[in-house]
Amino acid sequence: MKRIALDTSEQALPAAVVEVHPLRLGTGGRQADADAGEWVAEEVPIALEFNGLSHAVMLATPLDLEDFALGFALSEGLLDSPADLLDLELQPQCQGLALRLTVTARCEMRLKERRRSLAGRTGCGLCGTDSLDQVFRPLAQRVSPPAVSLEALARAMRELAQAQPLQRRSGGVHAAAWCNTEGALQLVREDVGRHNALDKLVGALARQLGHEPQAGFVAVTSRASFEMVQKTAQAGIGLLAAVSAPTHLAIRQAQAAGLALAGFVREGRATFYAGAPAQAQPAR
Amino acid sequence: MKRIALDTSEQALPAAVVEVHPLRLGTGGRQADADAGEWVAEEVPIALEFNGLSHAVMLATPLDLEDFALGFALSEGLLDSPADLLDLELQPQCQGLALRLTVTARCEMRLKERRRSLAGRTGCGLCGTDSLDQVFRPLAQRVSPPAVSLEALARAMRELAQAQPLQRRSGGVHAAAWCNTEGALQLVREDVGRHNALDKLVGALARQLGHEPQAGFVAVTSRASFEMVQKTAQAGIGLLAAVSAPTHLAIRQAQAAGLALAGFVREGRATFYAGAPAQAQPAR
Repeated sequence: MKRIALDTSEQALPAAVVEVHPLRLGTGGRQADADAGEWVAEEVPIALEFNGLSHAVMLATPLDLEDFALGFALSEGLLDSPADLLDLELQPQCQGLALRLTVTARCEMRLKERRRSLAGRTGCGLCGTDSLDQVFRPLAQRVSPPAVSLEALARAMRELAQAQPLQRRSGGVHAAAWCNTEGALQLVREDVGRHNALDKLVGALARQLGHEPQAGFVAVTSRASFEMVQKTAQAGIGLLAAVSAPTHLAIRQAQAAGLALAGFVREGRATFYAGAPAQAQPAR
Repeated sequence: MKRIALDTSEQALPAAVVEVHPLRLGTGGRQADADAGEWVAEEVPIALEFNGLSHAVMLATPLDLEDFALGFALSEGLLDSPADLLDLELQPQCQGLALRLTVTARCEMRLKERRRSLAGRTGCGLCGTDSLDQVFRPLAQRVSPPAVSLEALARAMRELAQAQPLQRRSGGVHAAAWCNTEGALQLVREDVGRHNALDKLVGALARQLGHEPQAGFVAVTSRASFEMVQKTAQAGIGLLAAVSAPTHLAIRQAQAAGLALAGFVREGRATFYAGAPAQAQPAR
């Protein structure tokens, strides 16, 4: 990525939280603090364009958009490495924002190939390249879980709970964090969408010189669905720790990718649905 | 909708919950109940096809798929009424399911028009028909909030908390419910995706003879994002009550649609972010 031209003026970048004055009702009617303002998270349609071609529109929190652009492109397998992103522009557009990525010719070819498939009629909805290929993308690599203790998982969740400024102010916001193998929080990204928070984290990590995907794990405030597992594994990371439940498809995908998947991670306990740490395996 | 041909054999319809045997770890190592099974929600790629044209693939819970097909099509503005859906087939496909809708020629024309736009290059990522039109769709109608008391909202949330079999068994599942103006639960749909749960509810309501969208409200276990507001208003329903926070875009969209939007609905309190009930307005 040679140059990032982001127009981050006030006008270009909507605030991530907005003060509103809702009407609070209690059993006695209007509540005493009914006129006090409160903060809600902004949600903005963000159009992602690759070499001038519209690709997708995502509803997201207008923060860390360089990370989002790169992370989305990497997670979706549209780019192979950060070096494939040559330029990035952010432009306010009508009621949203446009993220304009300039990518290498090789990646543009791949995108055009996908779009050609999209335009055609497919016999099988799920097998066609407009669908199944995009759902079950072949992973670039199998991943290996790092050795992480239960205490490290709990520490990550504790620190994550303290490191969510958007969530603390507004509620309704998810976070994804990168933690080292001791569970110390290294990097957090927040978004109204849990997938977006993870994409932003993946993008931010990819931009760090010397980032080693094997040297830590991802902790998320949400459930672990299929796409969360796929994005984590695609980034070369070997462990995903979630506060809440996984889906069955997420478990199967984690097993296929070699990813360790921990759910219901709380103080003093965690449930491994895939790739349980070797030291914790039952003696047989 | 003249005929519904659903292949609901065991093979065609994956179970909505699946028993797994994860490894539970506690501070003392493996936990006593480490070998006990538990249930996780299934998540299946579902391809939606309209008159043979692939439209979208959604990851969803494989339950109430007739409702999902119809509700998605109505919510997305692809159909104007249930009568536009002439036939529906469900087919297992590779690693997922295909929902094949046969729709009227008028709706097919509309879909093809959208696809033509998708294939073209657009100057403005968000203004183009492949993006902004699909995000901010013009609503068929403005809606009017029903008169609902705080007690009715709280009752809806109480009853909803008791009416989620999938969530109770597996965790990680959202629900959307239709309640009458007294807050009595009339209909609930669950899904791993909150949008899908709402689409299923909208579809189920549309299939009920004599359903009156003005005669009740929607209660959801999730946050209120833009799309939740848009789907509710598109269905002609005037009030959306959410357990958690709204986004700012959701509030603006609710105001534009005339929808009452209540967040943080709990026992004895609720916060109205748009369309507060007339009786609760401050005397000025």
